[in-house]
Amino acid sequence: MFSKFLESYEVGETWVSRGRTITEADLVNFSAFSGDWYPLHTDKEYAASTPFKQRIAHGMLVLSVGTGLMRFEPNVIVAFYGMENVRFVNPTFIGDTIHVEMKITDIEQKAGGRGVITALKEIKKHSGETVVAAVMKVMINKGGV
Amino acid sequence: MFSKFLESYEVGETWVSRGRTITEADLVNFSAFSGDWYPLHTDKEYAASTPFKQRIAHGMLVLSVGTGLMRFEPNVIVAFYGMENVRFVNPTFIGDTIHVEMKITDIEQKAGGRGVITALKEIKKHSGETVVAAVMKVMINKGGV
Amino acid sequence: MFSKFLESYEVGETWVSRGRTITEADLVNFSAFSGDWYPLHTDKEYAASTPFKQRIAHGMLVLSVGTGLMRFEPNVIVAFYGMENVRFVNPTFIGDTIHVEMKITDIEQKAGGRGVITALKEIKKHSGETVVAAVMKVMINKGGV
Amino acid sequence: MFSKFLESYEVGETWVSRGRTITEADLVNFSAFSGDWYPLHTDKEYAASTPFKQRIAHGMLVLSVGTGLMRFEPNVIVAFYGMENVRFVNPTFIGDTIHVEMKITDIEQKAGGRGVITALKEIKKHSGETVVAAVMKVMINKGGV
Amino acid sequence: MFSKFLESYEVGETWVSRGRTITEADLVNFSAFSGDWYPLHTDKEYAASTPFKQRIAHGMLVLSVGTGLMRFEPNVIVAFYGMENVRFVNPTFIGDTIHVEMKITDIEQKAGGRGVITALKEIKKHSGETVVAAVMKVMINKGGV
Amino acid sequence: MFSKFLESYEVGETWVSRGRTITEADLVNFSAFSGDWYPLHTDKEYAASTPFKQRIAHGMLVLSVGTGLMRFEPNVIVAFYGMENVRFVNPTFIGDTIHVEMKITDIEQKAGGRGVITALKEIKKHSGETVVAAVMKVMINKGGV
Repeated sequence: MFSKFLESYEVGETWVSRGRTITEADLVNFSAFSGDWYPLHTDKEYAASTPFKQRIAHGMLVLSVGTGLMRFEPNVIVAFYGMENVRFVNPTFIGDTIHVEMKITDIEQKAGGRGVITALKEIKKHSGETVVAAVMKVMINKGGV
Repeated sequence: MFSKFLESYEVGETWVSRGRTITEADLVNFSAFSGDWYPLHTDKEYAASTPFKQRIAHGMLVLSVGTGLMRFEPNVIVAFYGMENVRFVNPTFIGDTIHVEMKITDIEQKAGGRGVITALKEIKKHSGETVVAAVMKVMINKGGV
Repeated sequence: MFSKFLESYEVGETWVSRGRTITEADLVNFSAFSGDWYPLHTDKEYAASTPFKQRIAHGMLVLSVGTGLMRFEPNVIVAFYGMENVRFVNPTFIGDTIHVEMKITDIEQKAGGRGVITALKEIKKHSGETVVAAVMKVMINKGGV
Repeated sequence: MFSKFLESYEVGETWVSRGRTITEADLVNFSAFSGDWYPLHTDKEYAASTPFKQRIAHGMLVLSVGTGLMRFEPNVIVAFYGMENVRFVNPTFIGDTIHVEMKITDIEQKAGGRGVITALKEIKKHSGETVVAAVMKVMINKGGV
Repeated sequence: MFSKFLESYEVGETWVSRGRTITEADLVNFSAFSGDWYPLHTDKEYAASTPFKQRIAHGMLVLSVGTGLMRFEPNVIVAFYGMENVRFVNPTFIGDTIHVEMKITDIEQKAGGRGVITALKEIKKHSGETVVAAVMKVMINKGGV
Repeated sequence: MFSKFLESYEVGETWVSRGRTITEADLVNFSAFSGDWYPLHTDKEYAASTPFKQRIAHGMLVLSVGTGLMRFEPNVIVAFYGMENVRFVNPTFIGDTIHVEMKITDIEQKAGGRGVITALKEIKKHSGETVVAAVMKVMINKGGV
């Protein structure tokens, strides 16, 4: 996804990424990087006292891994425009393997040989359960320009 | 922000975080963590050929650091609900120092002693320029429950 | 602790931090950062042959995490002065959750609107067992100066 | 090994390193550093479907850890020349403890008070099984020069 | 490269990767990960006293980044077999941007619908200078099997 | 230091380590690991407003690197006992290269073939200026036991 030029996309087109297992090391490393040590992600005694019964991954961790699971081609993308309707639907636990499913919902032509592609991004567990859903908007170049 | 119970917030209330300088090491570490090695973030020769003239931070890097700059109190927060209108407004360059400014725009009472707080989150440079803006929704507990 | 000005402290005052679970990833990451790969921390076969029967966290790892569990206010602190009586009392194992307990034992007025606060810092497991104890000395500003 | 000058080595001489346990955090950290997220190393569902039945460490991870297990003396080594016959003989699983065994197979005098030492490097598990084998060539100084 | 089945390769075929800038953070992170703190990579005062006049990247760092710059398709690759003629030809300095150039030199049919592809891998700077060269051997599946 | 048995030490004996350059990446990585994002270490605009005029390394960062610069032999050391008189004497800036100087000040025989060695540890810059000083106590085995 996002490795080809604007004219090659169609509304309804889908794409599925490889998977990545979310490990305890990922929770530690993302807490460290972001500075977000909220106990639900980093204190297993606290987490055991919540309805989740265990530590869960940060929503932003899952979203960030979701960008790394996609494939971006340098000359194709103009800009990562923004996101709508970002929803942290279900918890991601240590040991869950997640992947990304994308579906194009809109292609809007813009001036200057560009367009904005709107896609529904669902980050799912191996079991098929969605953990994060978001609408992404990416500005893409036309080819042969 | 998000370190006190529901009844203590008012619409219009604001909060400002400490700052954090975004370094070359942060770009390397976030590329590594997320797996997103898009050349605009990681290849200085490629970046020099773009309108930005230099590497820029990943939008998700800035959003992730933005969560770490906030303060969350364990028993106060029920869930990080979601985001709307996430916009990557301006580039963050290596060496820029960013902070978070929050403004509460809505407080919605829910059943069971809870409520959803909607806040405008702006991540800004030291110069005052906004780099990322987003509307956040967080579910908060009432105190004394 | 250390988020308010000098005149607001009293001898005998205590403070308790949130917790953090020490993971295998923390042992790996601290060995990597510090360069201290002593086998008791990094070789599970060697560690199994010692009286501890398993890997234990570096004393400096625990002390370093202990500083991150505290809360420091920028304009309040002049300098982290030093430590006395640092004792590595009990081992911290992978999976232990630790927190910090502070108790102010002395407040010494200095010239120029400053003072040195002496505090006993105890890093404890969830079970209450102390793993590291140290006397810390921090130079603090008076407020309204 | 490689902590003494050229004239002190003999063909047939051997050296054994300390051990290091390869953890899940190491697989995550090396995938992140290198950018090599091949699913056999990072997706436990995929790995379970292969003949290995579980994730295995990257060959380059094991080789890289192998250099860190050796001891290099600054003024002794001129250059790490190269490798021959690098073979990834057996998989390294999460939890395996590896060490390095070196055996000098050739010492070649060069002009200018230097020489090239050829050594067989075997990276082995605690059980004695070899995981990676390679022939290394290192240029070494004469002492008293 | 290595994202298609055996029957799709031809001797003489070439492939060029994207680039990655090698930063000071990469030298720090690889020293940390591997445990190889040789002063030529980590002590700028020592490095200034050598013919290189500055810190240089570890040979294994460059080789490891070289694997991350390639593209591997899960069901295509059977095994990363080994390397020959690994030569650390020129130093990689902080700030250099490197990429991988591959050229297939041999395709050998094996029993069971597999084959071994031999390729010359050259890791080059933006200027075109080769820093590491190696002959890689990878076992590949036939498609439609 | 601490790579030989108890009977081989003498009061007055000294030892000097290799050096390590403290980089911006080290400040970022230690802030991340420890969770201590105090702005003097991580916000260059704030740091510019202090008497130091720039970011300085965490005291605990320098102490932690100081342990990694030493050499510990597995069977020699019984326990890292504790520290006295830890003093953060001078700031360590980004780009400073530090090393460790040890001097044995006391050797105390204990029951059971052990002893406690007391040593003055000074972490110094390349210029010779001391940044951290501490008295360390380490319990050491007798050899041939």
